[in-house]
Amino acid sequence: MKLKVKDVNLSTGGPLVAVLHEKTARKLNIYPTDRLSIRRVKRGNRITSVVNISSMGIREDEIGLFEEILKKLNVTEGTHVEIDIAERPKSLAFIKKKLEGKELDEKEFTQIIKDVMNNEFSDVELTYFVSACYSRDFSISETVALTNAIVENGNRLHFKDKIILDKHCIGGIPGNRTSLILIPIIASLGYKMPKTSSRAITSAAGTADTFEILAPVTLSIKKIQKVVNKTNACIVWGGTGDLAGADDKLIKIRYPLSIDPTGMLIASILAKKKAAGATHVLIDIPWGKGAKAETKKQALELKRAFKKVSKLLGLKIRIILTDGSHPIGHGIGPALEASDVISVLKGDGPEDLREKAVFMATEMLKLVGEKDPLKKVLDVLESGKAYEKFREIIIAQGGLQRPIIPKAKYFFDILATRNGVVKGIDNKNIAKVARFAGAPEDKAAGVYIHVHIKTKVKKGTILFTAYSNSQQNLEIVKKQLKEGNPISY
Amino acid sequence: MKLKVKDVNLSTGGPLVAVLHEKTARKLNIYPTDRLSIRRVKRGNRITSVVNISSMGIREDEIGLFEEILKKLNVTEGTHVEIDIAERPKSLAFIKKKLEGKELDEKEFTQIIKDVMNNEFSDVELTYFVSACYSRDFSISETVALTNAIVENGNRLHFKDKIILDKHCIGGIPGNRTSLILIPIIASLGYKMPKTSSRAITSAAGTADTFEILAPVTLSIKKIQKVVNKTNACIVWGGTGDLAGADDKLIKIRYPLSIDPTGMLIASILAKKKAAGATHVLIDIPWGKGAKAETKKQALELKRAFKKVSKLLGLKIRIILTDGSHPIGHGIGPALEASDVISVLKGDGPEDLREKAVFMATEMLKLVGEKDPLKKVLDVLESGKAYEKFREIIIAQGGLQRPIIPKAKYFFDILATRNGVVKGIDNKNIAKVARFAGAPEDKAAGVYIHVHIKTKVKKGTILFTAYSNSQQNLEIVKKQLKEGNPISY
Repeated sequence: MKLKVKDVNLSTGGPLVAVLHEKTARKLNIYPTDRLSIRRVKRGNRITSVVNISSMGIREDEIGLFEEILKKLNVTEGTHVEIDIAERPKSLAFIKKKLEGKELDEKEFTQIIKDVMNNEFSDVELTYFVSACYSRDFSISETVALTNAIVENGNRLHFKDKIILDKHCIGGIPGNRTSLILIPIIASLGYKMPKTSSRAITSAAGTADTFEILAPVTLSIKKIQKVVNKTNACIVWGGTGDLAGADDKLIKIRYPLSIDPTGMLIASILAKKKAAGATHVLIDIPWGKGAKAETKKQALELKRAFKKVSKLLGLKIRIILTDGSHPIGHGIGPALEASDVISVLKGDGPEDLREKAVFMATEMLKLVGEKDPLKKVLDVLESGKAYEKFREIIIAQGGLQRPIIPKAKYFFDILATRNGVVKGIDNKNIAKVARFAGAPEDKAAGVYIHVHIKTKVKKGTILFTAYSNSQQNLEIVKKQLKEGNPISY
Repeated sequence: MKLKVKDVNLSTGGPLVAVLHEKTARKLNIYPTDRLSIRRVKRGNRITSVVNISSMGIREDEIGLFEEILKKLNVTEGTHVEIDIAERPKSLAFIKKKLEGKELDEKEFTQIIKDVMNNEFSDVELTYFVSACYSRDFSISETVALTNAIVENGNRLHFKDKIILDKHCIGGIPGNRTSLILIPIIASLGYKMPKTSSRAITSAAGTADTFEILAPVTLSIKKIQKVVNKTNACIVWGGTGDLAGADDKLIKIRYPLSIDPTGMLIASILAKKKAAGATHVLIDIPWGKGAKAETKKQALELKRAFKKVSKLLGLKIRIILTDGSHPIGHGIGPALEASDVISVLKGDGPEDLREKAVFMATEMLKLVGEKDPLKKVLDVLESGKAYEKFREIIIAQGGLQRPIIPKAKYFFDILATRNGVVKGIDNKNIAKVARFAGAPEDKAAGVYIHVHIKTKVKKGTILFTAYSNSQQNLEIVKKQLKEGNPISY
């Protein structure tokens, strides 16, 4: 059948979607989420798209196309296209199989991930896959198979070195910016550490959001290789250049229900590491109220699964369980966290952040068999070599020689209303305050914490300061704080 | 925040969807599938919508609205609206709970179904619900709770009679149009039988598609009540007037993976019956290759679950297991099936269809305690009273006094290529041929089967005839038949 293209003048953000008038769909016996094969009349490549149906806006002899298809087919409003009914991806049968509780093999995962990468699935179908991975047990060999499928169907970095280091922290702890300190330490000790980091989804800042203040974090694969070859390290956004790209498409689906299927979580993390070329990985599992692992038991289970999967993947890993019950450092929000990081690298800064970074760097050196690891870490930190390396990476990624950390226009202090001792700082609530203040979009917005657990406070002591470039946002923060203070004393 | 409405000139078919420019979304910290509360500036009702994000077509100070929202808010292009970030429906926590394998209670199901009815969920979220019902065990009390939730959150029919009859067949058998014969038999014997039926989704014709040739099947609740009060029966499309409407919204999600979670299947069927006012229900479970229940064991399991759930719902049911291994009647396709039905009502017609209908009508009379049920059924059928009732229902629903059954312009015969005995008629493949011919959209299209299981055929005997109003479609059928004949001999 031939139809005329109508440009619906919208993008989907990935999936290939075409819209038919409901009468045309009925004539063709097509239902929403069915597939169409589309190409320019008599020439060009065929693409397969998911069908949406509208009762208006599209004429019966038209096909509405979203931006992604217009580009792929190189057509515009009025071009004639040929359409045929196409089969759904065969890998849907594997998704159904998993949903029914049966085990999938590497071939089946590979086909699913290939179809994910080619945008073959509708969101509904992707959700069935995530559901299956969440509601059904995931064996160790399935996790390995999924990891390999993700790595092999995305871009990868390649280095000749025998040792490539990496680290990962199972998120949830505000202010926990150890990566930005660890990377220059490790790189200045002569090891390569090409680091991909995430942006905030529900938190106030991700490592990528924080480093973005100092340098661009979205680089091409080619540029990343160049930066790492020059400086031994990079600090880029994990969604960049389709490194293990299938993972990014699945995260979108996991978001509405905040679903973290363990098998998928492990595959997602280790695939990013493998795709970046890592051979030795340190994994930090903070545990405590408000962290991803809320109990020590959960943290230990995760540790066991990581060990088994890594072994089969040929990755050397070391896993540490750390205190995840409260924030680390003073600042929460991109600029405030960047300040903490620079302070530590300059030999000052919040003691807990410095201590954790030193501990982790030491663990990483142990993992690769270095002698006197603690001494080596303290050497590069105290001599300023790590800070020099940090600046080198900033410049190599295209940042300024003297980067400027933005300051917020407005702030207000939250004071203790009586004498007491700080008992707790709630991870989720303090992050929420920073987000209401405008983080991570407003880079300067966030929270600066003046106290620690067990600090004695008097009536009038400043507990924390909220920063924002919008007074309106600070009003929202004030309203929010009436419902409860994230710092209990 | 205030934004200007942009009419995206498309409908979604249900869900309330708004589109923001990606920069606006970033500024507001909003991700795809997050929720916005929207209302006209300073007046009118608030609605909650799901957010899509586009990198084009929408300006940063605009909000793109699909038809459904424009109507609900009574706004047009250029109107100013106020938006606020809104919470996701609380019932998402219950969906996650079920996905994790925990049991839900009636309150939780009610909240989920209420949110389904109000279009509060995105398709991704609805999919999580269907997945949870499919991958996790569903207890009898959960099935009861879900059924009640669906009935109580949709429209219902109300009758004063103590007995209201209904029947349901667990689909999959082409040509199985017993309902259209049963209904006039039962109604002419003085019982009310308000019947809602489905349209074809993957089959060549549903009861609603077939009866639509004779009379309209989409009536208002008020009109349905009137027709039933006048004639004792009706034959309407089940998606009409939001009778147990949540079910229709879930079917759409089950379609891409052809998923029929048992608990949801039972709830879906019994909710439609309860909403139509039924007190006594006959359930036909055909089993065999190509039927929904492929083995007798599956059919018996389904029977047991139906019995338990019906008892708790206060429904009297009778369940029959029938031969579902091959089609029933001669015709497959709306007009061809309507012809079979009218033949039987006129005292002629395919014997297997007539026999099955008589058997089922007898079983229904047994269910309500009638004496001499078989005699009574044969009486109304042979005297022409059932046919008179059928015409009465057609006219009451707005059909013609003398309805015309459309005939296809083109046809061709499929002949036996050698001598033999018919061994099998494949349900799925023969339905596929009828669909390729154009059924159910082309009402006259389909297949007429000339043989039965065990019929002796010679080289040149006509096995079946394919009908269509499109010669192109018949070419497709011919091509398809080269891959195999649905009739084996």
